[in-house]
Amino acid sequence: MDKLLRIDMGAEGGPAATISPIGDYAGLGGRAMTSAIVSKEVPPLCHPLGADNKLVIAPGLLSGSLAAMSGRISVGCKSPLTGGIKESNAGGQPAQVLARLGYAAVVLEGKPKDDTLYKIMINKDGVKIIADNSLKMLGNYDLVNKIKKEFGDKICCISIGPAGEMKLSAASIAFTDMELRPTRHAGRGGTGAVMGAKGVKAIVLDDAGMQNRSPKDPEKFKEANKNFVQALKKNPITGKGLPALGTNSLINVMNESGGLPTNNFKTGKFEGASKISGETQAATESARGGVVTHGCHRGCVIRCSGIFNDKDGNYLTKQPEYETVWAHGANCGIDDLDAIAMLDRLDDDFGLDTIEMGTAIAVAMDAGLAKFGDAKAAINLVKEVGKGTPLGRILGNGAAVTGKVFGVERVPVVKGQSMPAYDPRAIQGMGVTYATSTMGADHTAGHARITNLLGLGIKIDYQKPDGPIELSRILQTATAALDSTGMCLFINYAILSKPENFQFFVDLLNGFTGLEMTRDDVLDLGKSVLKNEREFNEKAGFTSKHDRLPEFFKKEPLPPHNTTFIVKDEELDQVFNW
Amino acid sequence: MDKLLRIDMGAEGGPAATISPIGDYAGLGGRAMTSAIVSKEVPPLCHPLGADNKLVIAPGLLSGSLAAMSGRISVGCKSPLTGGIKESNAGGQPAQVLARLGYAAVVLEGKPKDDTLYKIMINKDGVKIIADNSLKMLGNYDLVNKIKKEFGDKICCISIGPAGEMKLSAASIAFTDMELRPTRHAGRGGTGAVMGAKGVKAIVLDDAGMQNRSPKDPEKFKEANKNFVQALKKNPITGKGLPALGTNSLINVMNESGGLPTNNFKTGKFEGASKISGETQAATESARGGVVTHGCHRGCVIRCSGIFNDKDGNYLTKQPEYETVWAHGANCGIDDLDAIAMLDRLDDDFGLDTIEMGTAIAVAMDAGLAKFGDAKAAINLVKEVGKGTPLGRILGNGAAVTGKVFGVERVPVVKGQSMPAYDPRAIQGMGVTYATSTMGADHTAGHARITNLLGLGIKIDYQKPDGPIELSRILQTATAALDSTGMCLFINYAILSKPENFQFFVDLLNGFTGLEMTRDDVLDLGKSVLKNEREFNEKAGFTSKHDRLPEFFKKEPLPPHNTTFIVKDEELDQVFNW
Repeated sequence: MDKLLRIDMGAEGGPAATISPIGDYAGLGGRAMTSAIVSKEVPPLCHPLGADNKLVIAPGLLSGSLAAMSGRISVGCKSPLTGGIKESNAGGQPAQVLARLGYAAVVLEGKPKDDTLYKIMINKDGVKIIADNSLKMLGNYDLVNKIKKEFGDKICCISIGPAGEMKLSAASIAFTDMELRPTRHAGRGGTGAVMGAKGVKAIVLDDAGMQNRSPKDPEKFKEANKNFVQALKKNPITGKGLPALGTNSLINVMNESGGLPTNNFKTGKFEGASKISGETQAATESARGGVVTHGCHRGCVIRCSGIFNDKDGNYLTKQPEYETVWAHGANCGIDDLDAIAMLDRLDDDFGLDTIEMGTAIAVAMDAGLAKFGDAKAAINLVKEVGKGTPLGRILGNGAAVTGKVFGVERVPVVKGQSMPAYDPRAIQGMGVTYATSTMGADHTAGHARITNLLGLGIKIDYQKPDGPIELSRILQTATAALDSTGMCLFINYAILSKPENFQFFVDLLNGFTGLEMTRDDVLDLGKSVLKNEREFNEKAGFTSKHDRLPEFFKKEPLPPHNTTFIVKDEELDQVFNW
Repeated sequence: MDKLLRIDMGAEGGPAATISPIGDYAGLGGRAMTSAIVSKEVPPLCHPLGADNKLVIAPGLLSGSLAAMSGRISVGCKSPLTGGIKESNAGGQPAQVLARLGYAAVVLEGKPKDDTLYKIMINKDGVKIIADNSLKMLGNYDLVNKIKKEFGDKICCISIGPAGEMKLSAASIAFTDMELRPTRHAGRGGTGAVMGAKGVKAIVLDDAGMQNRSPKDPEKFKEANKNFVQALKKNPITGKGLPALGTNSLINVMNESGGLPTNNFKTGKFEGASKISGETQAATESARGGVVTHGCHRGCVIRCSGIFNDKDGNYLTKQPEYETVWAHGANCGIDDLDAIAMLDRLDDDFGLDTIEMGTAIAVAMDAGLAKFGDAKAAINLVKEVGKGTPLGRILGNGAAVTGKVFGVERVPVVKGQSMPAYDPRAIQGMGVTYATSTMGADHTAGHARITNLLGLGIKIDYQKPDGPIELSRILQTATAALDSTGMCLFINYAILSKPENFQFFVDLLNGFTGLEMTRDDVLDLGKSVLKNEREFNEKAGFTSKHDRLPEFFKKEPLPPHNTTFIVKDEELDQVFNW
């Protein structure tokens, strides 16, 4: 992983690849890499769909090694959705494969001369850029099947659906899973639109003939990996809850706590929660011959995913995540798991962020385009996006645009990006992360539901007014570091729960890199990533005024607990005051 | 004009009017009034369509008096289009009538409890707020006819069309002219959407029984007014050009100079210019029994307007302005005056900003929705807005939203507002105004085509690099003052051309108010207005990064002269460095 692949899509004579040594970016992976390249090389005021934006795809620091859980990949650019810097990450196979091929990043640059669509093949022999207009407007599923016929099934694939080709701001980039299905997505921030603007439909990766990346200190690495895996197995969430019920175990938890945003953030309790809960989902999957416990990439030991079959027992989609079940379910008043699974399938096929789509549809429901609870109408609305009708393009540009076009006041976005499945009035710390993250409203940026931070040796006093501030600060910092390693975010449950577990993680990093990093060094990496990102956003015109929640969260109490978001603006401005 | 009328549309028990003394706002009129109230009373981060925004309608300082040209009215709010402060102004009768009724401002506040639509009647006896859902979705023409039947023809009317009711960001507010037609619009920035969000369809004004406002020093006032009128008559532009050809005399001038933006700002010359020029328009109007020289309000001595009849000699619309003829004409490649007049009529009827609509359609043409030059398609697109289809709502939210939804990179907006009819690559000073105005791209904010500023006793060195900066600074400052007096912007041609003319204007102000203002006092008023506005925008999240033109103006040379916008960012940041 010592080289960069740059592809200038606007080069004279057609797209041209350049492979160069990693240079100044050595030692960076994942989000640290994407945010370093974007903040250094992309003019902050450029148009996100223009020649000056770059799409950076970078495996994590540990990706391609035998480290468990190291299969996350980061995608960075100036976001068409937020107008700020973006790092969106995904699971699936490509992180490991790209890393084994030796690329620390693939950078798509420039602007195509015409609307020719390209596929890019990367293997041990090099890089081929092939014009292929027969791929135009294919859904991700058909696309991957076509690619498979051409290149066999030992490959993996990074691709966009029609949404990316149409340059919609909710367009995702799909990464194939172990079954070579396009089910893992860099969903947030419209990265798919940037790939579409570069004229690239698919990047096909084949690591035949390549080896796993070797640790600098194999013994230390092996020992640390063993301890790390055991810690994950022992932890009740990563060892039991997530494998058994997946992320969707949260539906019941959040509903019970009264923080499950329902009907476009009108209440925190959803009547139909039990019908769409992780428990019901797992039982349904089992009954239909699906899979309840499944990894999204090789080397995953948590295996929070699964496979969702339709009523006839045929594959429909991967197990919809909590965020998807919430966005298309509770937030739209829909309690039909089959409809939600169909929406998940359509989103994956068209290449759309499920969070942004669910929120946009809920806003459209508030505008009167459909009734809350009408699953059929919701499916038709997503189909409009696939067809590229004006209505579909509105929705496919996300909740903020949908709210603007239909004159809706209550639109749950920060920096133009939809809020995920935790009402900030119920979980104030999550509201702090939504407000202040460089990414726009994003739960993964600092998942402030975790309240035990012993692993970091830091004790938060939740009774203190700045409790949520400190919590969000630490989590955002730690997450920025974690997102750079290629590790799945869910290891947080284990490594932040016990000091020794955090040390196993640090040992794993040190064993692989040969460095002697401390806990503080890891946090410093997170700080430097966030500083890069905040600097970019400032140059793009963001100020503290953009680190705010929409006013209705301060004004409208959330039933059943009737709380509002009470963190003060001055407090929000202290989040990055390390 | 010593009282304020506040109407709380969200009051318990239904909308409630309060009449109060002018208090702290004494001495302010027009833009100074609207921007003072908005910057003091509206939370900068509020939702433009929410309860906390206010719609302020204020006649100018001299309105309602016998001062010539004093019939302009200002509308202020937080703009749904730009997200910043907005002052949009219009001609027509209401400024004079509202001022004679004694109101320095009407302020619509709060949020209606339901979607009931209201009309408001204001006369010498007071204020009546009447629910009237029969007015829903009426075009401005039908609305005014209905109002006329109810209240007679001695009234005047401020109203919104369907666009305002749908809360579209390009929605205007219509002000009736001398013929009681809804042809004069506060077009820019979506003020109509805010009126719609307040649930107010029409404000009917009747000044029966009221007197003209009296000057403090009648002799001085009368003498100054006489001199002022003579200065206007003697000036070649205000005395001859504008009366003869209207604002549309600029089509030929701008086309000759190569600065007439054509086909969505792709070139500065339009082949069909002569077919839509002011000369052709005036000849067409004459031939069809229309009117070539006509004032938009009583007391106008320039009379740059006119009446445009259709081929059968029947009234179609008022004489379309230069900006309209350009936006719906050259910028969409359309050279058909009748089609342009029809588009003007539709915009006026639906209540839409012609500049924003023409620019949005040109962007849609770039997206492939219609061909440049296709007048029929353009008419159909505007009709979509009237129908409120998804496509219509996209276009009705302006060029920025249209570009976003259809993935178009070349979108000529600043702060979300469309550029008017002067390409900034051809007229750099205009580009400076577009970039830095508190209003978003706005030619009236500092009409930097005027190069002779003798009236202000200031000499610009156009050879110096900061020539356009200084020009824009002075013009923006003077305009902010002028917009506060109720005076028509076009008096600038005369008062800025000779020092004595400027003095006549100052004398007129002093004669009316009894004050002893100097030239510098007038400019200080302008500065204070701009400071209020910039402070609001800063609190709403605007920075110097928003005082920039879209990047394509710096990169793409404009044929035929192949110039780019060359003013540097550092120079732009000096505009308000008085």
